[in-house]
Amino acid sequence: MPQQPTPLDPVQLTADLIRCPSVTPEEGGALALLEAHLGAAGFACTRVDRNGVPNLFARWGAKGAARSFGFNGHTDVVPVGNEAAWTHPPFSGALVDGELWGRGATDMKSGVAAFVAAAVDFVQETPPEGAIVIAITGDEEGPGKDGTLALLDWMRAEGEAMSVCLVGEPTCPEHLGDMMKIGRRGSVTFRITARGVQGHVAYPHRANNPLHALIDLLGRMTAEPLDQGTEHFDASSLQVTTVDCGNPANNVIPAEARATLNIRFNDLHSGASLTTWAQELIDAVAAETGIAFTLDADISGESFITPPGEFVALVARAVEAETGLVPELSTSGGTSDARFMKDHCPVLEFGLVGKTMHKVDERIETEQITRLKAIYARILREYFA
Amino acid sequence: MPQQPTPLDPVQLTADLIRCPSVTPEEGGALALLEAHLGAAGFACTRVDRNGVPNLFARWGAKGAARSFGFNGHTDVVPVGNEAAWTHPPFSGALVDGELWGRGATDMKSGVAAFVAAAVDFVQETPPEGAIVIAITGDEEGPGKDGTLALLDWMRAEGEAMSVCLVGEPTCPEHLGDMMKIGRRGSVTFRITARGVQGHVAYPHRANNPLHALIDLLGRMTAEPLDQGTEHFDASSLQVTTVDCGNPANNVIPAEARATLNIRFNDLHSGASLTTWAQELIDAVAAETGIAFTLDADISGESFITPPGEFVALVARAVEAETGLVPELSTSGGTSDARFMKDHCPVLEFGLVGKTMHKVDERIETEQITRLKAIYARILREYFA
Ligand SMILES: [Zn+2]
Ligand SMILES: [Zn+2]
Repeated sequence: MPQQPTPLDPVQLTADLIRCPSVTPEEGGALALLEAHLGAAGFACTRVDRNGVPNLFARWGAKGAARSFGFNGHTDVVPVGNEAAWTHPPFSGALVDGELWGRGATDMKSGVAAFVAAAVDFVQETPPEGAIVIAITGDEEGPGKDGTLALLDWMRAEGEAMSVCLVGEPTCPEHLGDMMKIGRRGSVTFRITARGVQGHVAYPHRANNPLHALIDLLGRMTAEPLDQGTEHFDASSLQVTTVDCGNPANNVIPAEARATLNIRFNDLHSGASLTTWAQELIDAVAAETGIAFTLDADISGESFITPPGEFVALVARAVEAETGLVPELSTSGGTSDARFMKDHCPVLEFGLVGKTMHKVDERIETEQITRLKAIYARILREYFA
Repeated sequence: MPQQPTPLDPVQLTADLIRCPSVTPEEGGALALLEAHLGAAGFACTRVDRNGVPNLFARWGAKGAARSFGFNGHTDVVPVGNEAAWTHPPFSGALVDGELWGRGATDMKSGVAAFVAAAVDFVQETPPEGAIVIAITGDEEGPGKDGTLALLDWMRAEGEAMSVCLVGEPTCPEHLGDMMKIGRRGSVTFRITARGVQGHVAYPHRANNPLHALIDLLGRMTAEPLDQGTEHFDASSLQVTTVDCGNPANNVIPAEARATLNIRFNDLHSGASLTTWAQELIDAVAAETGIAFTLDADISGESFITPPGEFVALVARAVEAETGLVPELSTSGGTSDARFMKDHCPVLEFGLVGKTMHKVDERIETEQITRLKAIYARILREYFA
């Protein structure tokens, strides 16, 4: 009987990762640490850095295997904020009363540690027929132009592939197992400038107030909800995030005013359809008021969904088996690199409860990390069964 | 036959005043110069300075005379702006091709020079039965708290009075004689702050966007005109002068936003009635949105009118006799110290064409100054006839 390898402890691995100060775009030793563990377990590892952004690709099994299970995640973390306000130093990985403390404890060094530990153990205990492909970036919290996108570009060039992909971001609102993400809303940002004719408030007929036209426009944009939601998506949400003019003189009609708004949209819309919608409203207000508008549209992601089916059912079953909870199939929340992975293969997201993510005193119960590893391990077993 | 005194040349006096650099609140020698001329002609002069603001009161004739004709004006001027952009230096009083150049050439050292010259000549040539009372401030362009208001406070305390008052501000849009002001609209400035709940744009149900409520409110305020104007007044005009939030993050719903708006209102409204109107709209939006608003109302002047009657007819007849034009009886335009004088006695405004006022290369045809003096002289003759 051969000697069983020691299981990789995901709590210890999370603590080790927290001690790597990998604030975007710093690698901080985090990817090197993962490469060492994965390499030792027989994964072929490649650093796929681009424009100074560190990325790690790892594969166990044959390139182009018919069944290639993918994991995606990130080791970079957001800045610590007010370091003095932390109960335990943000890169300490302190273990106190069953909780592991530090930046990245929930988002998402724990998730990465859990799937790496599950994969390392799995290939050593029950080598699967197929491949396990792991793509980890050091820039998910930053611009993201050279992170997961760089990994995907490199994979395409090299003929590397995933059949399905599970992203290990925190997804559960209250309890481990209560939610998985089967898609995400899209996001578009509009920056609108309105230019009129400056003048004195006592002589409004000699001026043309861009603020009045902008208020009219924003009123039309916010008056009605964009939709009521769809089968798998919440209602789209438009938020005006700033309006600025900066006119200090209360007897002067200003020449220019600006507004920014962001829309999180469901599968009834696309970045392009919303840009057309905005431009049509702008054209109408411009025609009525004589104010000149410019619209800058920044589409940071389209909406997408992996519809309920075999992959969704497999992950949901594993979650339920390990937690006793039937995960809600959600498309809510912010963006993640699933928006990039979805162009490659079906993608789902499942991870732990992320209540303290991006906050001071970010921390996680170690028991969640252990159970998350067990869920990922069960998913691998069932996928390759 | 006694020797006739030499008439006081209003063009020369205007040039002398322009050479006094009396940018608010600097006296610049302007009031001292006027005091010298008026004193030499037998006016009792008193400097009524308050809180560093220079003011000059002058009376010819008996205090409390039944017929006391008043003039009001200011010698302070707005800053020169870009001095290098001036064709002739702004305090040079250069006389070029029949035009007198410099800051205050139209607003309103020329008007002051014209009524002082008319009054000085008048009392020496045909001493009237009654009094001529002149109140000149060095702070009309600035805060105005210690200018004409200080003169009126002092007059009340000393038992000084005007029966009627003519303000010598520029009033004519195109040709000398085409307009006089029989009142002014009121002015109120509202500063509104909206406070909501900050949050992430992906989770709008956890936040409350103050910009949406503010846009709603401003939309209601600007949707319809306040009125259609009245017999003597243009329609009231509301202008939003600035909206500011200053939120740089397009994924964050801001906590607070601010707007300022100014209303120039006619005799259908008062500062108080408009404040009530604004507060009611705010309360309605606050109740619908849960956003907390604050309203700061700054009433800088109520609307007023000197209705057509004996005084208006006298001034209009004199203008027509000297210019051939029937002056329009207007209440349009910005504010002036007539808003203070109206609490003391009936007040009218008549002066020259003010096209270059407050601009670089402010200047005036000397012929306008000469004719303005003739108009003021005729008004005095007819008033005391
Ligand atoms: Zn994350
Ligand atoms: Zn003036």
